[in-house]
Amino acid sequence: MSDVSKQIEIIRRLNASLFGKDFLLTWDKSIAELELIMAVAEALRGLYRQNGSARCFDSGLAVSLFRDQSTRTRFSFASASNLLGLTVQDLDEGKSQIAHGETVRETANMISFLTEAIGIRDDMFLGAGHTYMLEVAAALDDGFKSGVLHQRPAVVNLQCDVDHPTQAMADLMWLKEYFGSLENLRGRKIAMTWAYSPSYGKPLSVPQGIIGLMTRFGMHVSLAHPEGYDLIPDVVELARKNAGATGGTFTTGASMDEAFRNADIVYPKSWAPFRVMQRRTELLRGNDRDGLKQLEKECLANNARFTGWECTEQKMKLTKNGAAIYLHCLPADISGVSCKQGEVQDSVFDRYRIQTYKEAGWKPFAIAAMILTSRFKDPAGVLEKLAKGGRPRLIG
Amino acid sequence: MSDVSKQIEIIRRLNASLFGKDFLLTWDKSIAELELIMAVAEALRGLYRQNGSARCFDSGLAVSLFRDQSTRTRFSFASASNLLGLTVQDLDEGKSQIAHGETVRETANMISFLTEAIGIRDDMFLGAGHTYMLEVAAALDDGFKSGVLHQRPAVVNLQCDVDHPTQAMADLMWLKEYFGSLENLRGRKIAMTWAYSPSYGKPLSVPQGIIGLMTRFGMHVSLAHPEGYDLIPDVVELARKNAGATGGTFTTGASMDEAFRNADIVYPKSWAPFRVMQRRTELLRGNDRDGLKQLEKECLANNARFTGWECTEQKMKLTKNGAAIYLHCLPADISGVSCKQGEVQDSVFDRYRIQTYKEAGWKPFAIAAMILTSRFKDPAGVLEKLAKGGRPRLIG
Amino acid sequence: MSDVSKQIEIIRRLNASLFGKDFLLTWDKSIAELELIMAVAEALRGLYRQNGSARCFDSGLAVSLFRDQSTRTRFSFASASNLLGLTVQDLDEGKSQIAHGETVRETANMISFLTEAIGIRDDMFLGAGHTYMLEVAAALDDGFKSGVLHQRPAVVNLQCDVDHPTQAMADLMWLKEYFGSLENLRGRKIAMTWAYSPSYGKPLSVPQGIIGLMTRFGMHVSLAHPEGYDLIPDVVELARKNAGATGGTFTTGASMDEAFRNADIVYPKSWAPFRVMQRRTELLRGNDRDGLKQLEKECLANNARFTGWECTEQKMKLTKNGAAIYLHCLPADISGVSCKQGEVQDSVFDRYRIQTYKEAGWKPFAIAAMILTSRFKDPAGVLEKLAKGGRPRLIG
Repeated sequence: MSDVSKQIEIIRRLNASLFGKDFLLTWDKSIAELELIMAVAEALRGLYRQNGSARCFDSGLAVSLFRDQSTRTRFSFASASNLLGLTVQDLDEGKSQIAHGETVRETANMISFLTEAIGIRDDMFLGAGHTYMLEVAAALDDGFKSGVLHQRPAVVNLQCDVDHPTQAMADLMWLKEYFGSLENLRGRKIAMTWAYSPSYGKPLSVPQGIIGLMTRFGMHVSLAHPEGYDLIPDVVELARKNAGATGGTFTTGASMDEAFRNADIVYPKSWAPFRVMQRRTELLRGNDRDGLKQLEKECLANNARFTGWECTEQKMKLTKNGAAIYLHCLPADISGVSCKQGEVQDSVFDRYRIQTYKEAGWKPFAIAAMILTSRFKDPAGVLEKLAKGGRPRLIG
Repeated sequence: MSDVSKQIEIIRRLNASLFGKDFLLTWDKSIAELELIMAVAEALRGLYRQNGSARCFDSGLAVSLFRDQSTRTRFSFASASNLLGLTVQDLDEGKSQIAHGETVRETANMISFLTEAIGIRDDMFLGAGHTYMLEVAAALDDGFKSGVLHQRPAVVNLQCDVDHPTQAMADLMWLKEYFGSLENLRGRKIAMTWAYSPSYGKPLSVPQGIIGLMTRFGMHVSLAHPEGYDLIPDVVELARKNAGATGGTFTTGASMDEAFRNADIVYPKSWAPFRVMQRRTELLRGNDRDGLKQLEKECLANNARFTGWECTEQKMKLTKNGAAIYLHCLPADISGVSCKQGEVQDSVFDRYRIQTYKEAGWKPFAIAAMILTSRFKDPAGVLEKLAKGGRPRLIG
Repeated sequence: MSDVSKQIEIIRRLNASLFGKDFLLTWDKSIAELELIMAVAEALRGLYRQNGSARCFDSGLAVSLFRDQSTRTRFSFASASNLLGLTVQDLDEGKSQIAHGETVRETANMISFLTEAIGIRDDMFLGAGHTYMLEVAAALDDGFKSGVLHQRPAVVNLQCDVDHPTQAMADLMWLKEYFGSLENLRGRKIAMTWAYSPSYGKPLSVPQGIIGLMTRFGMHVSLAHPEGYDLIPDVVELARKNAGATGGTFTTGASMDEAFRNADIVYPKSWAPFRVMQRRTELLRGNDRDGLKQLEKECLANNARFTGWECTEQKMKLTKNGAAIYLHCLPADISGVSCKQGEVQDSVFDRYRIQTYKEAGWKPFAIAAMILTSRFKDPAGVLEKLAKGGRPRLIG
């Protein structure tokens, strides 16, 4: 039985549905729904590798709205959309009229007449990104119910202030591939730790996404960061509850060594303290350049106290058999390569480089699965038709 | 009989052809040709709603050239192109070499080797937009006749200094849907009025497009604006002649109340006086920033004398049974919402909000119809093949 | 027998393969491989003209990376990609994170998970463009071998510091069309000459591409430029060797008249001296604005000594029967049209204008052939399937 057929069977057995639902936060979804995403993503990857067409849309737009620079996520969204038959249309706020007082409600409808999916990245302003996505979603609901829209596009969170679900799901799928199954993740220790970077203002969504998701699969999640580098308290609380419910654990601490000790998986990554992001949000809103410069200066000075938070060969030796798997959402700040001193020692990164690429390689399929499951009532049926239709992706 | 089949029959009966023709001004087209556009647009919408594929192009580019910011029209053009199977390629003059002395003639050919449609928005410079489109069209004719181009792309006016045909046609189709038929529009009163906005320099193409088009369907068109806020005299003259020929009327006045009185339809919208646009064009050409600032100041001061030109609940009461339909090309300047005081009272806009969205929703289909009728000799035959081919837009 | 079938037979007879290979320099390819590109391009054009679909890809991205402004090449790449069924995704370094220290290796993989082709234009920095393309290619090899990428995208050089193969191949195909066959080019004299332009810093890749390619087809290639306006010495040396091996000749000189005398083909075009490009590269790297201004001033002053290097009617009279064919990559600096005094007299350009457009018209098909031959093992088989499949490009 092909890999695709196997995944189709799994999808049928799951009996979960994401039809008509947006993908904004992993913790809004049930375990079965998350497994549905993974099975659909794996089926799409299987189809791709056997040169099968995955075009379930004959036409349709996929709108991308990026409030921040991005290469990886932009290409992942473009790849996912293209794979399914959709065409990306950027909503560029520089070019568009959004900046000129147009309401979110109106714009959401105006861009959606023939649109099947909307991918949004909005991670700069704490308290704003997720809220904005909910506003867009409500406007689409309103437009669809009123007969303005002939279909309800799926909204996919490509990174917000709270969660980064396409990243976290790609990370999880990579761990599943690496360890062989979700079951094999149970009881594993994962260290989600802060790491030093000579920059500041990196979003919280990656560590939050990781502790919010990995605690649901029976893992022992160890969050570690220097004092003051807190995440959003609600998300930390959620991780704690998740862990309790799945037989896993969730601990927090202020020692990278402690987190690394005996870990199966390490995810060392820089982020800005929650309170700094709050101040930064206010300063950005007020367009207070001097304030922003002052904040940056303070933060970099504070960061500099923690250059020891680097994923070195020595620290890797603390992990299980000295051989934990290293994760990163990329790009990493590699000491001596991309900066003088950073998140990870060059020799460590180099050993795991290809693995981090494979980790990232799941993202297009994760996004495609989020779109497909939201727009099709019967994903298994769709995948079966695609597989049996036998239309090749490349002729010949 | 399905909606699509009905429209195909209508198209056959019309016996009109737009094959090989550009869509630049509605008044260049016969009534039968305008009805052809509407029938094809309705057939495409019908096909879309019954999940049928409208891809009549297997490949091909649709070039978009925007000389002005745009969200709506950009997405409408992208949606229309995608619906038919074309891929949008932006001709960005910032990125391209047009600004560097390249002739229009050469560029028009260079971007058209495998191109099926070119959508142009050029509404900033009075006397320039329509002229530019004619130049592009002539260059394409030349290239096609000389064997440079294997096909002659359709040029679609996405807004020029004179007309905004995709908007006006969408407005007309919405009125047709709302009132049930074109026949039901005969004898209706439509008030195309200026309205106050705390901005200046809004193009004349919308009011001109409306008076140029609606006067051809037996309506009573009332144009009203404060003294000095004239439209291009030629277009006003044309509206007058149209009305006479169709049993309708065309009147002009300087009172919003008079225009609204007993109106079936109101379209209150800000624009800059014709003479201001002329001065502005010269200043823009001369890159005279101080002059532009001075002009803006003068105009805003002049506008401020007419804040009473607001579509209020009180004014709406003057209309037929107090229940005229409110039109707007969006975005509207809504008092207390998008600005302190603007074109329309918030409660009025809110009551008609969903209807204005539906009005806008016709635009992608209008544009698609303009492309399809220009590039295919037998639109009815194409639509029949699409409908009978039965390829679904979404699988499953 | 149709034109397409004829080309398919030629492809089979050639017995050459470019499968899995990038197209970076024409001189890396054998004559049979170049003829393969031409035959595939001609087959694709034939297919296009008989309204046949050339979509050999059902989905897939074509990444475009332009380090310089471009209209023609951008549209040629977009047209070629679209023709084959691929969707262009721009890698905009302004928007992306490349500028922020990300390694080429990582980015090359991150943008390639579902990518079939990468087109790169990088001609500003002498010594950098070709090197960069080799780096990207090596990263893709690495990613493909490691299982990161499911396929190895084709890299196509859309202009580098050394060669401009899509231009030179389009030029060659146009000459082949014009003179009837490649055989008919043997013994022809082609004058590749510098010409005056009131600008500076134009890349060397066009003249280098021409002398590197045309010397391989038994032509007499005459390179002429004012003293000091040298090309990269290695490429000149290569042209000399090519000519010797094919029964042609390669001469260099400092007289436009001598080069034009009895020429069958003339290609008068401005470029910056090799040594100037070296200095400019250093200044650009050091972001030395004053240095760049000073260099520009010097160069323009030096250029001004050679305004006599203009392709005038008088100079055209020196050519074979006064009727040589005039080539240009466009846009040309036309005296009295795009500048006061430039590369070519207006009446000369005007006589050859349509021909230069036709010359350019080969570029999309040349690029499409480079992608198709790199990604498909059996191009003849693919073209046969497309031709026999009979799917129309336009319905009806």
